[in-house]
Amino acid sequence: MAIILKGKEVVDKLNDELLARSDALKEKGITPTLGIIRLGERPDDLAYERGAIKRAEKTGVAVEQFIFDADITQDELIAEIDKINEDPEISGVLMFRPLPGQIDDEAVRNELAPEKDVDGITDGSMAGVYSGGGNGYPPCTAEACIQIMDYYGIDPRGKNVAVIGRSQVIGKPVSMMLMQRNATVTVCHTKTNDMAGICRDKDIIIAAAGHIGTVTEDFLSPGQIVIDVAINFDDDGNMCGDVEFDQAEPVVQAITPVPGGVGTVTTSMLMKHVIEAAEKRENLI
Amino acid sequence: MAIILKGKEVVDKLNDELLARSDALKEKGITPTLGIIRLGERPDDLAYERGAIKRAEKTGVAVEQFIFDADITQDELIAEIDKINEDPEISGVLMFRPLPGQIDDEAVRNELAPEKDVDGITDGSMAGVYSGGGNGYPPCTAEACIQIMDYYGIDPRGKNVAVIGRSQVIGKPVSMMLMQRNATVTVCHTKTNDMAGICRDKDIIIAAAGHIGTVTEDFLSPGQIVIDVAINFDDDGNMCGDVEFDQAEPVVQAITPVPGGVGTVTTSMLMKHVIEAAEKRENLI
Repeated sequence: MAIILKGKEVVDKLNDELLARSDALKEKGITPTLGIIRLGERPDDLAYERGAIKRAEKTGVAVEQFIFDADITQDELIAEIDKINEDPEISGVLMFRPLPGQIDDEAVRNELAPEKDVDGITDGSMAGVYSGGGNGYPPCTAEACIQIMDYYGIDPRGKNVAVIGRSQVIGKPVSMMLMQRNATVTVCHTKTNDMAGICRDKDIIIAAAGHIGTVTEDFLSPGQIVIDVAINFDDDGNMCGDVEFDQAEPVVQAITPVPGGVGTVTTSMLMKHVIEAAEKRENLI
Repeated sequence: MAIILKGKEVVDKLNDELLARSDALKEKGITPTLGIIRLGERPDDLAYERGAIKRAEKTGVAVEQFIFDADITQDELIAEIDKINEDPEISGVLMFRPLPGQIDDEAVRNELAPEKDVDGITDGSMAGVYSGGGNGYPPCTAEACIQIMDYYGIDPRGKNVAVIGRSQVIGKPVSMMLMQRNATVTVCHTKTNDMAGICRDKDIIIAAAGHIGTVTEDFLSPGQIVIDVAINFDDDGNMCGDVEFDQAEPVVQAITPVPGGVGTVTTSMLMKHVIEAAEKRENLI
């Protein structure tokens, strides 16, 4: 019988803290504001956007949407980003990616002003996560894993951690953040041999493969903490993670549910970054 | 009886290739040129500089030295870097660090033009190594490890690798580069528990702790490849690595010597980057 590491508790505590910080900013005449850049109407983007808008309301963050046709040219998009960079009302920017094929992701993401890069997509933010320096912001989902661990008192220091997945948005940044917190991290991926054996003797597993059924009982052992980052959908359309929850729950010490775990916390990280960006802009911190 | 992975063979082959590329550039009227920025007269810097100048000669790279007093102000140094950035004769820049205390490393290193950052110190280069993208240049010592493995036909794909050390100049970048080549990497450091046990069951060990006697026989098992990156000096002033060579050599399959291993290859990586930078500038590649 594992402890279920629910995201809601983490979020409730965070929302209160963030709302207080937003209120403090507003008393100084500043409204922390998230700019959302969306190209077209991709269902995933729309779902995340709805969640972000709701979370923004709860944390006192305003939202301004910048919606463009999916066939916008690269030059046009860059011009729009430049305008948003210069707009003093926008504290931070979320830009949905992947961008359509006519646009070079590399060129566009680095156009964003580093101080508004609340989703960690610019080189400066990446270098900050990689170096453990204070620059920029880490990707929100990676930080959500850390936030959940912090909330539940799980200290990664000296622990052996397997991270499954090496993506820029989760696997790599969460590995760097855990290493920064003195964990010994092994990064597993599609070319890893005997992933089950590697994971089985670890203290903590971070599952971010993005494939249903990646983590089965042969990956697991008593005492483990399992953080399931993935958002997959099964044949019946039900949301599920990478971990076979029914196999894990009787064995491990604690596990995040999907839905209701890491994903729940992600948009709160975004709001935290927007508020931080607004505070920094005003030299309050 | 381990195979000794000597750096000299790697360098000899590289020097020939690099000299041919330099000659091709010179036929087009371009001399690939390394700018060296040095503050003061630190013995380590001077030793590395001498090695770099010799290697530059062998690979057809010109060297221009920019030597300043160790008490130069940050503003003065930034102004000098700006001048070097704009100097069309300088293809790439090596700046010795750590910088003296009056200078903010962060501010200065990112002043360097990304296209001249042949030692991988800017955010753009770091983000390139971290993301596996094509931007910038990796730190030369990290790349030297990969170069030696490539030369001796050691393919890290699917192998389990322990990297000992998490520094920005070796541990982290070599981990990223190995991960990019499909190795399963575990990064060990001072807070790692049972480092010997973790290393013993790995296929490859990259030792970059910078401490004599870090890797002893209990870290080792038959069939392993050991890359010793460290340059330490024992009580008698003899150069040695992190690995107890006498304990390792009878056990493992192959090992780099210190001196004569990774360190030998590092300055060739620097010359390779300078030549690449000159080629890119001329749109030859």
